[in-house]
Amino acid sequence: MTDGPAPLGEPVPLVEPAPLVEPGETPGIFITLEGGDGSGKSTQAELLAAWLGEQGRTVMRTREPGGTEVGVEIREIVLHHRGHIAARAEALLYAADRAHHIETAVRPALARGEVVIQDRYIDSSVAYQGAGRVLGGDEVRQLSLWAAEGLLPDLTVLLDLDETVARGRLDAAQKRFDRLEAEKGAFHARVREAFLGLAAGEPERFLVVDAALPVQEIAALIRARVATLLE
Amino acid sequence: MTDGPAPLGEPVPLVEPAPLVEPGETPGIFITLEGGDGSGKSTQAELLAAWLGEQGRTVMRTREPGGTEVGVEIREIVLHHRGHIAARAEALLYAADRAHHIETAVRPALARGEVVIQDRYIDSSVAYQGAGRVLGGDEVRQLSLWAAEGLLPDLTVLLDLDETVARGRLDAAQKRFDRLEAEKGAFHARVREAFLGLAAGEPERFLVVDAALPVQEIAALIRARVATLLE
Repeated sequence: MTDGPAPLGEPVPLVEPAPLVEPGETPGIFITLEGGDGSGKSTQAELLAAWLGEQGRTVMRTREPGGTEVGVEIREIVLHHRGHIAARAEALLYAADRAHHIETAVRPALARGEVVIQDRYIDSSVAYQGAGRVLGGDEVRQLSLWAAEGLLPDLTVLLDLDETVARGRLDAAQKRFDRLEAEKGAFHARVREAFLGLAAGEPERFLVVDAALPVQEIAALIRARVATLLE
Repeated sequence: MTDGPAPLGEPVPLVEPAPLVEPGETPGIFITLEGGDGSGKSTQAELLAAWLGEQGRTVMRTREPGGTEVGVEIREIVLHHRGHIAARAEALLYAADRAHHIETAVRPALARGEVVIQDRYIDSSVAYQGAGRVLGGDEVRQLSLWAAEGLLPDLTVLLDLDETVARGRLDAAQKRFDRLEAEKGAFHARVREAFLGLAAGEPERFLVVDAALPVQEIAALIRARVATLLE
């Protein structure tokens, strides 16, 4: 067989680096929430949606993966297929979900002038798949951007949770932790690091909030930032 | 919302042009069959597999989409989902099927020294999706190459069928053709043109055979070319 220049197992470069985006003006506002499981994304999405409603804005709350009917079917494969799924196949399935969701749900809502509040987006793909270390974060990002035809959020709220603190509490409660738990901890630490790295690279887009703060305090910080987008 | 430099509806460039591959030596041989439906791919795959068996080679026959269990689930979404699927989502689903199939079925067979005979591969994606004119052929090709980590066939047999002749016969039999039939004809003519363009661009990889020739004559032409790969 003939092969490209990259040996087996090494990624073929998918892309040139993503071009930096320029802020554009459209009627809608696109807000994404990122962070580890249990960092409070759903609670904050709900509080923000309620407040935006009070401001007279129409809000669409959505999520990835699984925000559309096709997405539910794709999610079913990714989460419930018995047996191994190749890493690239998994990344492509998530990207397919994203492509369909953005084209058929998010863009139409933005075009109608709505505020879209979305649980997880490109940054989650980069942080989680990149932290798994099979695929590079840059490749995952570029694949996502291709899928979404370059759509980036106006604001991404990163609910940052100190995994060491969180795990320290958990470990103390359990009195011990096994190797699997320790590996999970290391993985989540890499995910968190990846999220913080992404936020540092795009400070205008990101609002990083300490997820250990009281719920209402976090909500106030988010509202303050969103208010500047409404003006 | 903010957008990449490409306006809505225009593709974000996925990639740099695919690097040209250099022929490499591995124990296995990877042969793909391409062409329109009814061009005789299955018949020729069967005849070739039988002949290779007589030569003492182990043969794996496979196909895309749907060559693996995950692929069957993906194919189910693409073919049987009720309602619209975004063009990029569909392309990504096919690419996901490809990534899983190549990693878990084709590469292992090639590594074991087998001859893999595959019904449809990257060229079909480029010809069909490109001919649909929603996505560019280059984008589709690069997405496929990323999915397959750069794996290209040693030989691609294009069973070329003159659609005009084929349709002329059909129309004569039906006495008339409606607009949908005419559109289908135009689509298939674009697909054929795309296949021929791909073959012209990589003459070393492609063997183009007139699919209107007698079955045994086509088989002999294919065997003659495959024989040079066995040496």
